[in-house]
Amino acid sequence: MDKVVVLGKTGYVAEKFLVYLASRNIQAIGVSRSDINYSNKETLVEFLKSEKPSFLINAAGYTGKPNVDACEIHKSQCLLGNAVLPGVVRRACEMTSTAWGHISSGCIYTGKNEDGSGFKETDKPNFSFRTDNCSFYSGTKALGEEVLEDAECYIWRLRIPFNNESSPRNYIQKLINYGCLLEAENSISHLNEFVRACFECWEKRIPFGIYNVTNPGFVTTSEVVELMKEESKRRIIEELPNPFDKEYLFFNDEDDFMNKAAKTPRSNCVMDTTKLTHAGITLTPVKEAIKKSLQSWNIS
Amino acid sequence: MDKVVVLGKTGYVAEKFLVYLASRNIQAIGVSRSDINYSNKETLVEFLKSEKPSFLINAAGYTGKPNVDACEIHKSQCLLGNAVLPGVVRRACEMTSTAWGHISSGCIYTGKNEDGSGFKETDKPNFSFRTDNCSFYSGTKALGEEVLEDAECYIWRLRIPFNNESSPRNYIQKLINYGCLLEAENSISHLNEFVRACFECWEKRIPFGIYNVTNPGFVTTSEVVELMKEESKRRIIEELPNPFDKEYLFFNDEDDFMNKAAKTPRSNCVMDTTKLTHAGITLTPVKEAIKKSLQSWNIS
Repeated sequence: MDKVVVLGKTGYVAEKFLVYLASRNIQAIGVSRSDINYSNKETLVEFLKSEKPSFLINAAGYTGKPNVDACEIHKSQCLLGNAVLPGVVRRACEMTSTAWGHISSGCIYTGKNEDGSGFKETDKPNFSFRTDNCSFYSGTKALGEEVLEDAECYIWRLRIPFNNESSPRNYIQKLINYGCLLEAENSISHLNEFVRACFECWEKRIPFGIYNVTNPGFVTTSEVVELMKEESKRRIIEELPNPFDKEYLFFNDEDDFMNKAAKTPRSNCVMDTTKLTHAGITLTPVKEAIKKSLQSWNIS
Repeated sequence: MDKVVVLGKTGYVAEKFLVYLASRNIQAIGVSRSDINYSNKETLVEFLKSEKPSFLINAAGYTGKPNVDACEIHKSQCLLGNAVLPGVVRRACEMTSTAWGHISSGCIYTGKNEDGSGFKETDKPNFSFRTDNCSFYSGTKALGEEVLEDAECYIWRLRIPFNNESSPRNYIQKLINYGCLLEAENSISHLNEFVRACFECWEKRIPFGIYNVTNPGFVTTSEVVELMKEESKRRIIEELPNPFDKEYLFFNDEDDFMNKAAKTPRSNCVMDTTKLTHAGITLTPVKEAIKKSLQSWNIS
């Protein structure tokens, strides 16, 4: 029977892991840095020796609040959480022979391949310090993967989480909240499916390595907005609560967005999910997953 | 009267600061991370509130032993020491209104400007993650400067320290020890002059900012070797102890060096020292400084 430690227990992704594991009656211990200073290797090693988990999930990281612009002014914390901590966890897990997985991000890419295909796990990040075109946040996430080069662990790449639960971190909620939207193509991750798929990697004992964990396919912002408008019409007809009834405005282009709304460039990218699918772990095609989330939307 | 805290007390540069300050009867407290965990902001703030130094020198960092190749396998510690720690020190010093200086490095550059001039403080690093041509060490040092953007502190760039004291970190000692040498052009720093010049920045209250602290000019490896051979001749004639009497071999070129001896590329670069000179702080011209070190060489 598994016993799982989740680092970063108060984060958006960590919380979902804990809810998921609880729903499966799997013993899980969520820890935050105020519980245990896990950025100190010795402290983490002692904790792992004492708790002896069968698996560890590093869902700790620094994302910036309310968005990645905040990372431009908190560079040191951002580096610590996203690039140094993975190395500390790696060493502590190596020293205690603890299997583990790390939540990385697809935000280390921008665009898609020249032939229109999504980025594979073998493609070099093209939105990183090394390509000098990135936000500080994306730079630190890419460095985090460098720190984990050749590590015996899972590296799960999340992209723009969403589900049917209202939250400021939820992509759909963001589209509701923002006054103006940026048209872009993105692969995105249904959060509940993401955590299930990550844990399935461990349960099925698929090989360690990097996995893009997004719903297959990609969507443009305006495609998602169209689905929201359709859902809005349905809710009007059926006289249901309707958070989707609003005017959706778009920036003219990325320059307009950068001038008016953002301090640092955003990653928008298409991911390839073949590797995970071939390992026998599947997520719902992206548009279907969005439709379901909209139809079952919970106003908190 | 000054009271100075030096972080990283056991390092090559930190030790020289402590010796220098002692020689001037300036109160100095050297601390290592085993004394005080200064990578924790709160711990450092408490320490500064208790000790109330008038100035702090961050001479802590991760250089890799025996050389920067080691940083390629200790990425996380390297990032922590060279990029995260400067940010922690910055915030702790801001919170306690403590004046301070940070030991950075000229190794964030490679080569020289197209017109043959050295790199000024205003030139963008060209040997960093952002230019994707660097060692992991240089990448983290350049990130450290990014973390200190707009900070009210001195950023002193050291390059290839040397003096007349035998030490594995001393450039002259390295040229004695290495079986084969790489021909390159470099600006370099006489360590004793470096620490004196850094502290002079504070004593003279010159404006905070970045300063290249190298001896004016540059040397090629073979020029230094020629000076060593001349010194060797003198010592043979005068029947003095002679560590310079050896055969000096060179790699064919940088490819040969990378194939045979190194895991990661090295920075070789020429720095411009006009800014420091204009601020009224001078170092001995580089060849003169080398000659003096050779003539007074101490075999430890």
